[in-house]
Amino acid sequence: MSAAVEGLEQRFDAKVAEALREYTRAGGYPHLLGLSVDVVEPGRIVVSLPVRAEICSVVGVVHGGAIASLVDHALSLVVYPLVERGKWVATTEFKINYVESVSLGAEGTLRVTAEVLSLKKRLAVARADVEHEGKLVAHAMGTLYVKDPAR
Amino acid sequence: MSAAVEGLEQRFDAKVAEALREYTRAGGYPHLLGLSVDVVEPGRIVVSLPVRAEICSVVGVVHGGAIASLVDHALSLVVYPLVERGKWVATTEFKINYVESVSLGAEGTLRVTAEVLSLKKRLAVARADVEHEGKLVAHAMGTLYVKDPAR
Amino acid sequence: MSAAVEGLEQRFDAKVAEALREYTRAGGYPHLLGLSVDVVEPGRIVVSLPVRAEICSVVGVVHGGAIASLVDHALSLVVYPLVERGKWVATTEFKINYVESVSLGAEGTLRVTAEVLSLKKRLAVARADVEHEGKLVAHAMGTLYVKDPAR
Amino acid sequence: MSAAVEGLEQRFDAKVAEALREYTRAGGYPHLLGLSVDVVEPGRIVVSLPVRAEICSVVGVVHGGAIASLVDHALSLVVYPLVERGKWVATTEFKINYVESVSLGAEGTLRVTAEVLSLKKRLAVARADVEHEGKLVAHAMGTLYVKDPAR
Repeated sequence: MSAAVEGLEQRFDAKVAEALREYTRAGGYPHLLGLSVDVVEPGRIVVSLPVRAEICSVVGVVHGGAIASLVDHALSLVVYPLVERGKWVATTEFKINYVESVSLGAEGTLRVTAEVLSLKKRLAVARADVEHEGKLVAHAMGTLYVKDPAR
Repeated sequence: MSAAVEGLEQRFDAKVAEALREYTRAGGYPHLLGLSVDVVEPGRIVVSLPVRAEICSVVGVVHGGAIASLVDHALSLVVYPLVERGKWVATTEFKINYVESVSLGAEGTLRVTAEVLSLKKRLAVARADVEHEGKLVAHAMGTLYVKDPAR
Repeated sequence: MSAAVEGLEQRFDAKVAEALREYTRAGGYPHLLGLSVDVVEPGRIVVSLPVRAEICSVVGVVHGGAIASLVDHALSLVVYPLVERGKWVATTEFKINYVESVSLGAEGTLRVTAEVLSLKKRLAVARADVEHEGKLVAHAMGTLYVKDPAR
Repeated sequence: MSAAVEGLEQRFDAKVAEALREYTRAGGYPHLLGLSVDVVEPGRIVVSLPVRAEICSVVGVVHGGAIASLVDHALSLVVYPLVERGKWVATTEFKINYVESVSLGAEGTLRVTAEVLSLKKRLAVARADVEHEGKLVAHAMGTLYVKDPAR
C-alpha cells in the first residue's frame, strides 16, 4: 500500500476492486494478451502475464509492447477503487524504461505492481515496476485522468 | 524523412528495410496484434494496426496497450536500416500521451509514423505520432539503444 | 502554428500573449535564468535563453537543468492565450531527451519552440524542441492541466 | 540504498562521492540555483534547494524549472561513484510529474532523493522523488548514459 497518499483504505471500494478482475477476464485485449489481476489493494494493484510465444518477437524475446500493455492496464485500473462509482479513469500518459529483456525460454510470468503516488480530484500519478521471476525488467510512471461520467 | 539528421539516405540499407516487413509478418507478438509495416524510408517508418474487437477493451474502446505496442514496434524498427548490419537496436524507453480514444465502432486503421530525431553511435531518439483515419490519437517519444552483436 | 488543433486563431487572446512576455520579464526564476519570450502565436511559443557561465556546469557545458527549465517555462505558457482568462495552466508532467551538449565557449542563444498538439477542456499536450544556433539540442513533450481559478 | 542493483557497495567510490559535493559547490548553475549535495551513498543521492524568491515565479510559487533542475542534477550525479574513474555520466532523458506546488511563503527546503534502479555497462536508470518539508512534490525517472572519456 502506498504510504504517499492518505486515506486510501477509507476510499477503497472492494466491490469495484473485484469488478476489475472480472473486467480483465471478460475478453478483448486483456484476454488476447493473457492478463490477469492478482491483487487489488488500496492504492496498489498486481497484474500478471504468463510468458508464451505469442507475446514474444520471432527472435524469442518478450516484445516491449506486451510489457507496455501490462503496465498500461495496471495503471488504468489502480485508481478505480479509489474514486466515486461511475467516474471514468484513463491513463493519459505514461513513460516506461526497459531494463532487462526476458527470453521465451525463461518461461515464467511477468508481474507488474502499480502503486498510486498522488491522487487529486482529477489527476493521479502512479508508478509501476515489472518483474519476471524476481528480476526487475521495467519501470514506469504515468498520469491518470479522472473524468465525470459521459452522458 | 527527418530533416534533423544528416546523411540518412546514404546510411539507409534497403535490404534491412525490407526485412523489417518480413520480421513483422513472421509471427509472434506483431502477428498476435495484427501489425504490418506500410512504409520504411530513411529515418521514418509507418506501421499500421486495423481496429478490431481483440485490441479493444470490453467497453469497446481501443486499449491503450495496443496503441503503446504499435508505438514500441515502430520505434524499435525505425533505426535498424540506419546502422551497420548485425547491430541490435532496442527501445530502451519511451513516453506516450494519449489524446483521443478510438471506439471499436469507428473501425478503420491505426497508423503510427515514427521519425528519427537524433542518431549517434549508441543512442538514437525518435518521435512517433499515431493517427486513426486522419485524427491524431497519441504522441510518443523514445530512446533507442544500438548494441554490438551479442556473441 | 500547430496544424493538429483546430480553431486556434479564434481562441487566441493577444492580450494574454503580450502578458506572457511581461510575466517572464518581471522577475523571479525566469529572470534568474535569463529567459525571454520571443514569439507568441496561436498554439506556439518561442522562448530564449542566452548561453552564459551561470547556466553552465563548472566544466563549461550548459546544465541540463537550464534546458529543462527553458522547456518547462515554454510548456507552461503556450496554452494560456488559448483558454478563458482567469483559468490557470500548469505543466503537470513532461519528458525531455537531450541530444547534443552545448559548450559555454559556443556562446549564442538557446531557443525552445513549444507547440500545442492537443487541447481539451482540462488537458493539453504540447511538444517542445530546443535548438542552439540552428542545431537541435533537446526534444520534449508534456501535459498541461487547465484549472478553474482558485477561490 | 537501492535494493534493485547488486554489488553497489563494492563499486562505490567514496572519493568520487566527496567530489560531487565539491563540484556542486564550485559555481556555475548549481550555485546560481543554490543546490547542495546532502548525502551520497551507494546508488543513492540527496540534493537540496532552499526555497527563496529567486526560484519562484512572480506569483510566488516555486517554478517547475527549478524542481526539474534539482532532479536533473541528482540524476546526473547518482551514478558517478559507481563507475570507473574518468568515465563520463550524462542524463540522456528524464520525465517528471509535478504533484504539489510549493509556495514561497512556505519557505523550507526542497529535497530530491535519487536512487539507481538499474546499472549496466553504458545505461543506468534512476528514480527521483522530490519532497518539501515531508510532503512529496514531484516524481521523476530518467536514463543515464555512461561514456568513455573523451580524448
